[in-house]
Amino acid sequence: MYSFRNDYSEGAHPNILESLVRTNMEQTFGYGEDNYTLEAQELIRAHIGREDVAIHFLVGGTQTNLTAISAFLRPHEAAIAAASGHIAVHETGAIEATGHKVITTETVDGKLSPIHIEAVLKAHTDEHMVKPKLVYLSDSTEVGTIYYKEELRAIYECAKSHGLLVMIDGARLGSALMAKDNDVTLNDLAQYSDAFYIGGTKNGALLGEALVIVNDSLKEDFRYHIKQKGGLLAKGRIIALGYIELFKEQLFFDLAKHANEMAEFLLQGIKEAGYSTLTESTTNQVFPILPKDIIKELRKQFDFSDWEEIDEAHLAIRLVTSWATPKESVESFCEALAHFK
Amino acid sequence: MYSFRNDYSEGAHPNILESLVRTNMEQTFGYGEDNYTLEAQELIRAHIGREDVAIHFLVGGTQTNLTAISAFLRPHEAAIAAASGHIAVHETGAIEATGHKVITTETVDGKLSPIHIEAVLKAHTDEHMVKPKLVYLSDSTEVGTIYYKEELRAIYECAKSHGLLVMIDGARLGSALMAKDNDVTLNDLAQYSDAFYIGGTKNGALLGEALVIVNDSLKEDFRYHIKQKGGLLAKGRIIALGYIELFKEQLFFDLAKHANEMAEFLLQGIKEAGYSTLTESTTNQVFPILPKDIIKELRKQFDFSDWEEIDEAHLAIRLVTSWATPKESVESFCEALAHFK
Amino acid sequence: MYSFRNDYSEGAHPNILESLVRTNMEQTFGYGEDNYTLEAQELIRAHIGREDVAIHFLVGGTQTNLTAISAFLRPHEAAIAAASGHIAVHETGAIEATGHKVITTETVDGKLSPIHIEAVLKAHTDEHMVKPKLVYLSDSTEVGTIYYKEELRAIYECAKSHGLLVMIDGARLGSALMAKDNDVTLNDLAQYSDAFYIGGTKNGALLGEALVIVNDSLKEDFRYHIKQKGGLLAKGRIIALGYIELFKEQLFFDLAKHANEMAEFLLQGIKEAGYSTLTESTTNQVFPILPKDIIKELRKQFDFSDWEEIDEAHLAIRLVTSWATPKESVESFCEALAHFK
Amino acid sequence: MYSFRNDYSEGAHPNILESLVRTNMEQTFGYGEDNYTLEAQELIRAHIGREDVAIHFLVGGTQTNLTAISAFLRPHEAAIAAASGHIAVHETGAIEATGHKVITTETVDGKLSPIHIEAVLKAHTDEHMVKPKLVYLSDSTEVGTIYYKEELRAIYECAKSHGLLVMIDGARLGSALMAKDNDVTLNDLAQYSDAFYIGGTKNGALLGEALVIVNDSLKEDFRYHIKQKGGLLAKGRIIALGYIELFKEQLFFDLAKHANEMAEFLLQGIKEAGYSTLTESTTNQVFPILPKDIIKELRKQFDFSDWEEIDEAHLAIRLVTSWATPKESVESFCEALAHFK
Repeated sequence: MYSFRNDYSEGAHPNILESLVRTNMEQTFGYGEDNYTLEAQELIRAHIGREDVAIHFLVGGTQTNLTAISAFLRPHEAAIAAASGHIAVHETGAIEATGHKVITTETVDGKLSPIHIEAVLKAHTDEHMVKPKLVYLSDSTEVGTIYYKEELRAIYECAKSHGLLVMIDGARLGSALMAKDNDVTLNDLAQYSDAFYIGGTKNGALLGEALVIVNDSLKEDFRYHIKQKGGLLAKGRIIALGYIELFKEQLFFDLAKHANEMAEFLLQGIKEAGYSTLTESTTNQVFPILPKDIIKELRKQFDFSDWEEIDEAHLAIRLVTSWATPKESVESFCEALAHFK
Repeated sequence: MYSFRNDYSEGAHPNILESLVRTNMEQTFGYGEDNYTLEAQELIRAHIGREDVAIHFLVGGTQTNLTAISAFLRPHEAAIAAASGHIAVHETGAIEATGHKVITTETVDGKLSPIHIEAVLKAHTDEHMVKPKLVYLSDSTEVGTIYYKEELRAIYECAKSHGLLVMIDGARLGSALMAKDNDVTLNDLAQYSDAFYIGGTKNGALLGEALVIVNDSLKEDFRYHIKQKGGLLAKGRIIALGYIELFKEQLFFDLAKHANEMAEFLLQGIKEAGYSTLTESTTNQVFPILPKDIIKELRKQFDFSDWEEIDEAHLAIRLVTSWATPKESVESFCEALAHFK
Repeated sequence: MYSFRNDYSEGAHPNILESLVRTNMEQTFGYGEDNYTLEAQELIRAHIGREDVAIHFLVGGTQTNLTAISAFLRPHEAAIAAASGHIAVHETGAIEATGHKVITTETVDGKLSPIHIEAVLKAHTDEHMVKPKLVYLSDSTEVGTIYYKEELRAIYECAKSHGLLVMIDGARLGSALMAKDNDVTLNDLAQYSDAFYIGGTKNGALLGEALVIVNDSLKEDFRYHIKQKGGLLAKGRIIALGYIELFKEQLFFDLAKHANEMAEFLLQGIKEAGYSTLTESTTNQVFPILPKDIIKELRKQFDFSDWEEIDEAHLAIRLVTSWATPKESVESFCEALAHFK
Repeated sequence: MYSFRNDYSEGAHPNILESLVRTNMEQTFGYGEDNYTLEAQELIRAHIGREDVAIHFLVGGTQTNLTAISAFLRPHEAAIAAASGHIAVHETGAIEATGHKVITTETVDGKLSPIHIEAVLKAHTDEHMVKPKLVYLSDSTEVGTIYYKEELRAIYECAKSHGLLVMIDGARLGSALMAKDNDVTLNDLAQYSDAFYIGGTKNGALLGEALVIVNDSLKEDFRYHIKQKGGLLAKGRIIALGYIELFKEQLFFDLAKHANEMAEFLLQGIKEAGYSTLTESTTNQVFPILPKDIIKELRKQFDFSDWEEIDEAHLAIRLVTSWATPKESVESFCEALAHFK
């Protein structure tokens, strides 16, 4: 049974495992002070086109979010997030556990805009309330949408005019950057944020996220925070080798492109079968709205997750494709969907 | 140049990498709900000889300590540790960052005893002070010593008579269990603690620690805490496959035995060259006290870390052996030491 | 210029100051272990009609909320509050600063019901989300409404059926209990909550809130939490003497009754002048919706706070009465309002 | 029975209560934005001789310490304190509860020096350890000793040369400033610290500590922190009126002087009776070492606390005098001591 449940069902791209095997008995320094980590950092800096950014490798998305946000904020400051934001919903209160409120605001498509930010600022007027300080975006968002360059620029300028920081959760950044309607580059992200991260776990790495800190004032002592939160891996090579493989040429982008193409095939099949989707996703997550009895049949052949009840007879499900999704599995799914109609 | 700096300089035992390669394209559930995780848990339970213990896999030692201790304690409760304890010295205040004081007590050999515990309890008398609640031990300790069964039993009984919990940091547990003077088994650890962990990172795994929760009252909702602290890996297989290889037969113990044997050879060479050591270690860490000029010469051929200044002319250094230490490197070191004398 | 801005504009009821003066040079034990504290606790227990409740005096509402909630919850557990709840809006993230998320839910009238609670529970399904554990109510609410006995009972039963705790913020409890439509007693509060508090600051005390812990499992070591959060006053008498005066007979209730009556007079004047109010308050807060130009005129003679913009021409303001509000000031306000019409 | 147990056994200096009574029915703004608070701040600034310092009133010492230290430090930074320091011993882990380690160092007399600070810095070398950032001093110390100007200057210069902050706990500052061997002024404290506080609770106020923030970089948003930690009193006048009385002329200093004189009489009596003391205190705490059988007899007439066991037959007790200690009580104690000899 093929699973469209998520983009981390398989291990890692074979090149990464080969690299681990090839270098296995080399002795390296511990805790991310090894040469592979340095090499991976340099490769990513080259792809961003900025020598001045600090880069840190962390194990996963929740860890990256909590480590960065708690390092960036003073105790009374809060993050602003879409109500669907990962830090607001799916991290077991990780940000609050470091002492900070996550202020949420309802959005149509999982995307924040200056309007949302201004509204939050207007509602937080004095020291009896938290002080909004950091705008948290996800690109791609939790519902598969992406930010356009003009949108990022507008958010960044709004943020700066109010003394706010911008941090971009890039757990699925590869897929966003390779979306057919994307006009954002890694360099743009560095220009329009104070920090962002480049997700490896969901794009072919064994594990790891690469946090890019652009704002100089946020760089100092950052390794202390990683260590304190339990994220400083003894064997830094494990993550670094993955990023070397992903960024020594274009593998990171190729893998994301494949995932997106598979999602687009799914989308075509869904439309051809006459169904609509919950959101306008051009990335590797598709949210078809299907009759519940058809979902029941599909589940006999495929694994995926329920997303949201639409009405008594319909459900939106979530289909996730990845670097590892075979075209055949996509085709089978579309055929099955056409068949049940 | 060979490095005796630590026991995580290399990647992982080749069997583990092979296992990752072999299973790479299998799709598994995320977040430690995959079958490999279940299998690894069962294998460890079998080695412990207890079906009733809960087992969780975490990325590293600091993360395991902070997640477990913050889950086990109420806000006003504190941990008791040796002044040399890892949580007291080398975790960037990770425990305090979760809100809990670490009460330290000086020891001769890195080991706590009921005398230390009773003294701490006697000094904490009312609500103007924290309430000591958890005894934190490391086995082997930060200075290479180990606990004997009778000592663990005495600590556990002391703890229980005062309503305290016992948690054992097993980052180097393999080396402790295979020390030639050890009389403790995994089953004993389950009997004389409320929780302990079996370190993988420092004994041949790519990464990971296996936390064993024995006390029923500490088991509930533990996965919430792992997630909240950023430690719930998307790809649980990465750690699980390592533990399967280590525990499907005796690899965990064989690797630790090798590390200890290499340390013993080092110790012999040190003694034959006429030098003493800082502590009576029977595990994989040796702390020779050497003249500074000889250390300078040795450093041209070997890497290792300084440990403690003894006097103007002498320094204790730390030599760490591992599953991957070749006998030839140990021999070279001993020859060099003999030569400089 | 008379201020309807809040119910803590004056000092304290004269009896309380007299009591401070009368006992001033008596030596007492520190930190709430004095006889006046014991006496105040006994008087309150008698008014509740329960000998088994624990009573603690804290300085203010935010401190009581953060101390109690952080003591009652484990790290992954969260509070459920109305979106207008004081802990959600007006405490500078105090609860989050202790590590806990506040889950908010929109309400019409500031009041939670089992429907809200069930919806929150349904949305929190696994360890990737916080675990809702404590229902936070305010009585009277931030918009002046009160809970009826049947409502409290339903919430409590709902909570218990799901293993949740119920805590009632009683910063304005006196006014709630003396509302003309109230059917709840102090004894009912003890029956239908795990903890609640009886606000002194806003009902004639110099300062202080009396936290009543009903649930036995929440009582242990509570003084440690007060001390740790900085709330254990050296001179316990300061709060205790206030509660003795308020509860040795009926002063607490008499003062709240006066405040409510003044609010009712205001309400009559508002209605007679032809205006409506934002909420159906029967307590000491009234929220008239007035034309902005009339508000401008009123502000020349009275102080009060803006509450919410209704439309371009109208604003809801907040008028708060208290134990100290003179009837003349209420009459002046009503006359002014009638005059400007 | 007269109690030498502490300096907060009585209520407040009568002038303060009179002031509360006199102004009781005046309406003021809430949360420390009233005119009395402004007046008190101005009076204290005048006594310090610095217009540029920020002043905040907090309820007690633990609250002041935890609010200030958590506001001043980033998550990975730690405070350095004497092992006898109040934050290290007697605040139920309040500082740790805000996430920060307190690094302790043994002292002879409760006083830190540059030697202690340098030793702590030397031991904290990298990101695996907390970063020492704030030097916490108490003046007078927990054992009654005081800092001389030259000592404060040396600590401050040491701190600044290492980028550290200096904060002085002044819960008993009045007594320190009026010690006969003191050469420090309020102006000196502002010169040689980043923040300090002027204790009211233990020197005749009903309650309250006046925190003085000297370092500009620590002033921003401080009221947010007070509110978040539960310390922003609704009725700011309660503390402010006390400080107005204490500082409108010299009452603060006169009261402390009286307390010290009473302590000096005690000391004379102790010496005349042939006993020694544990520390060389010139402030309002005296620690005589007495035979246990004599202590037993004294306890029939006086209350005081045990401090430290000296040997099987002797105990150091703590005698605390205050603004309210009658000379007759001191004389009775000395007579009793002479009698039992």
